[in-house]
Amino acid sequence: MPKLITTRTRIADLGKPRIIVIGGGFGGLEVIKGLEDLLAQVVLFDKSNHHTFQPLLYQVATSGLETNSIVAPFRKLFGNQSDFYFRLGEVKNIKPEENYIETSIGGVKYDYLVIASGATTNFFGMTEVEKYASSMKTIVDATKLRNKIIRQLEYALLTSDEEVMNSLMDFVIVGGGPTGVELAGALTELKKNVFPKDYKELDMRQMDIHLVEASPRLLNGMSEQAGKKAMDFLTEMGVKVHLGTAVKSYDGYEVLLSTGEKLISRSLIWAAGVRGNPVAGLNAEVVTKVNRIAVDEFNRVKGYDNIFAIGDVAAMEGDERYPKGHPQMAPPAQQQGKLVAKNIRNIIHKKPLKPFRYFDKGSMATIGRHKAVVDMKGIRFQGFFAWYVWMFVHLMSIVGFRNRVFIFFSWMWNYFSYDKSNRLIIGRNEEKIMQDEVKP
Amino acid sequence: MPKLITTRTRIADLGKPRIIVIGGGFGGLEVIKGLEDLLAQVVLFDKSNHHTFQPLLYQVATSGLETNSIVAPFRKLFGNQSDFYFRLGEVKNIKPEENYIETSIGGVKYDYLVIASGATTNFFGMTEVEKYASSMKTIVDATKLRNKIIRQLEYALLTSDEEVMNSLMDFVIVGGGPTGVELAGALTELKKNVFPKDYKELDMRQMDIHLVEASPRLLNGMSEQAGKKAMDFLTEMGVKVHLGTAVKSYDGYEVLLSTGEKLISRSLIWAAGVRGNPVAGLNAEVVTKVNRIAVDEFNRVKGYDNIFAIGDVAAMEGDERYPKGHPQMAPPAQQQGKLVAKNIRNIIHKKPLKPFRYFDKGSMATIGRHKAVVDMKGIRFQGFFAWYVWMFVHLMSIVGFRNRVFIFFSWMWNYFSYDKSNRLIIGRNEEKIMQDEVKP
Repeated sequence: MPKLITTRTRIADLGKPRIIVIGGGFGGLEVIKGLEDLLAQVVLFDKSNHHTFQPLLYQVATSGLETNSIVAPFRKLFGNQSDFYFRLGEVKNIKPEENYIETSIGGVKYDYLVIASGATTNFFGMTEVEKYASSMKTIVDATKLRNKIIRQLEYALLTSDEEVMNSLMDFVIVGGGPTGVELAGALTELKKNVFPKDYKELDMRQMDIHLVEASPRLLNGMSEQAGKKAMDFLTEMGVKVHLGTAVKSYDGYEVLLSTGEKLISRSLIWAAGVRGNPVAGLNAEVVTKVNRIAVDEFNRVKGYDNIFAIGDVAAMEGDERYPKGHPQMAPPAQQQGKLVAKNIRNIIHKKPLKPFRYFDKGSMATIGRHKAVVDMKGIRFQGFFAWYVWMFVHLMSIVGFRNRVFIFFSWMWNYFSYDKSNRLIIGRNEEKIMQDEVKP
Repeated sequence: MPKLITTRTRIADLGKPRIIVIGGGFGGLEVIKGLEDLLAQVVLFDKSNHHTFQPLLYQVATSGLETNSIVAPFRKLFGNQSDFYFRLGEVKNIKPEENYIETSIGGVKYDYLVIASGATTNFFGMTEVEKYASSMKTIVDATKLRNKIIRQLEYALLTSDEEVMNSLMDFVIVGGGPTGVELAGALTELKKNVFPKDYKELDMRQMDIHLVEASPRLLNGMSEQAGKKAMDFLTEMGVKVHLGTAVKSYDGYEVLLSTGEKLISRSLIWAAGVRGNPVAGLNAEVVTKVNRIAVDEFNRVKGYDNIFAIGDVAAMEGDERYPKGHPQMAPPAQQQGKLVAKNIRNIIHKKPLKPFRYFDKGSMATIGRHKAVVDMKGIRFQGFFAWYVWMFVHLMSIVGFRNRVFIFFSWMWNYFSYDKSNRLIIGRNEEKIMQDEVKP
């Protein structure tokens, strides 16, 4: 059988400026949208063939939403945009002096390059934790975690040893940001509304959900008031919140905390931080300690004229409000993406560039039914109304109209039925259930 | 870390008769439903934690439906049924003399045993075909096939070698039963309505869909008229149908047909037959050549009083209309499941048993938009109306009300938009895109 040699990206030369975007997250999508109708060729490289709406990954992991409803194929999103090209591949290296990138499917030249490669989980060098913990950055992560949560309960039925049972029924979430808080809340709702019906043989009071946060408060990116209220909500719901506490080690079974306390759990979910995911080939000095790429006020990578970096992977200097770079969330990425598209137009049309100024519309997190916290410009509120606002804003932000409709129906369904129907184990490798199999 | 020893099924002794059902397919579900309110303990063993609606797997494989919408967790289905127990595990062996089964999670005694373990793909001993072909029996099979179809087109963009490109863009489906016919039709709709927008760089006329059937006609289980019409529909849609043709060999690239013709394709989908999937431990003579378990008119396994087999895995003797056993489809399994539940009640209540008589309500297959064939008692029709009947009947048969609603919306969406939105590659093992990776 002839092997398939796929070392040529085979991107047609249209005789127009070629703008290559690396990564189709929130930032990348805005760049592509913003370049519509420009006389240019826009090429997107991504390792996946779809955009992932990361803010709702936690709902996939906790059986609330279908896997497919929070992702959207790039070709569907931009199928009507002329001169748009997509390539499924990973960009390995940039050769700035040649205006050339090397990818898993071959190399290609660019006129303008936008690095929007996002962030990955930061385990802060704790390799053992990395080995045993679940992360929550991709749709596969979320699906694996869903499988794991359900499987732990199925296993818990099979043991009478109290410690072993607790190791299966207890969950430790590390990181008190939005992901950790939302995951802790959603797990508690499974514990309260779904699992008691599914696992009548288990005593659900034995299921403990721990949330471990190194700083003295939850939701550090938000107001004191929001953090305090989230703490109240979670405590009220029975989550065991450990503030000012770090994880020292985890061997897949025993979690050692900085307080000396030990927790026993086969499920540690790591939502304690991210680091930039830059591409090799740039000057070493432009990459910061947390792997973000230093950019100027136009999102241009320092020292390069035609290379931009946006979103989680970029750290802009010069905004006195954010000395370490903008928060690694969707809104800065989207706003930077929009502006970079405009500025590339400006360059091509020989107009002056516009500097970036982040407009913080506020942020929000949901904890559970009728429980959310919202910080907006000049106004903060929590509880019932905040929860509706959270749902509305997320629904409107979902990429793809069809996904919006389906998520709306899923949420209505879950709301009225108190049910979460996606409690499925759909595993690739025919994970076998057998003696001793349960290594974490 | 203490290993988890899960060798005990830990099924409580309720002091009531214990009825164990192996497999939660169409047959198994009916047995469990039919035993509701009986003073008995009902235990279901299954390797998955969910029922799979197999007739729609082909729509998952061709991006028409979400993965989650055709599966339903057993615990959700039977959460309200008292004395129902589910165990996620594989039954390995039956010890009839001890009324005992051995499973991947330990052993347990039964009073009545119902084997409803279904069927697996039959490769008729062709191990090379088995190694390289895609099958279509489980939700994981269907998702893998979806990923593969989309990935082949992404790869096809990268080559200029005509043969290599054809090996990626051509698909060979083996088996002209409902699965093969429906898959060929759905792939053709992708080719016609979806891929031309997604892959403007490819010449879609190069995409060939072959359907290979060993017998001289399609849809052997249905009327001549239905087979003929299906043939007309497919030919009209551009599918290359090879009747009276068998696959002799496949090395992942070259398909050798019994006619001597060779087809080149990296995607061979095997829907050419199934074989029973019995459980070890029964008398060897009760297992037929195609691995079905010989049962009497009450679905009792020959030679055993308290062991039943139903559905695809059972072959009933004595029905002159079906000398080789009933067709391996949902309706016989469901009807047998219902009757076995009744007969177990009869045994417990010391009433006489009722023999099984298959009531054939007819069968149907869909080929594409407004194209279906229906055989019903005394009436046969094809085309537009048949297509609506097919949709209605399948919608009503879907397990789980929520799934029914979601599939209805998906179908409406696909119908009006001519789109199939689930064209996603969501792979577990971070399948990497690189040179030479495309081994079939």
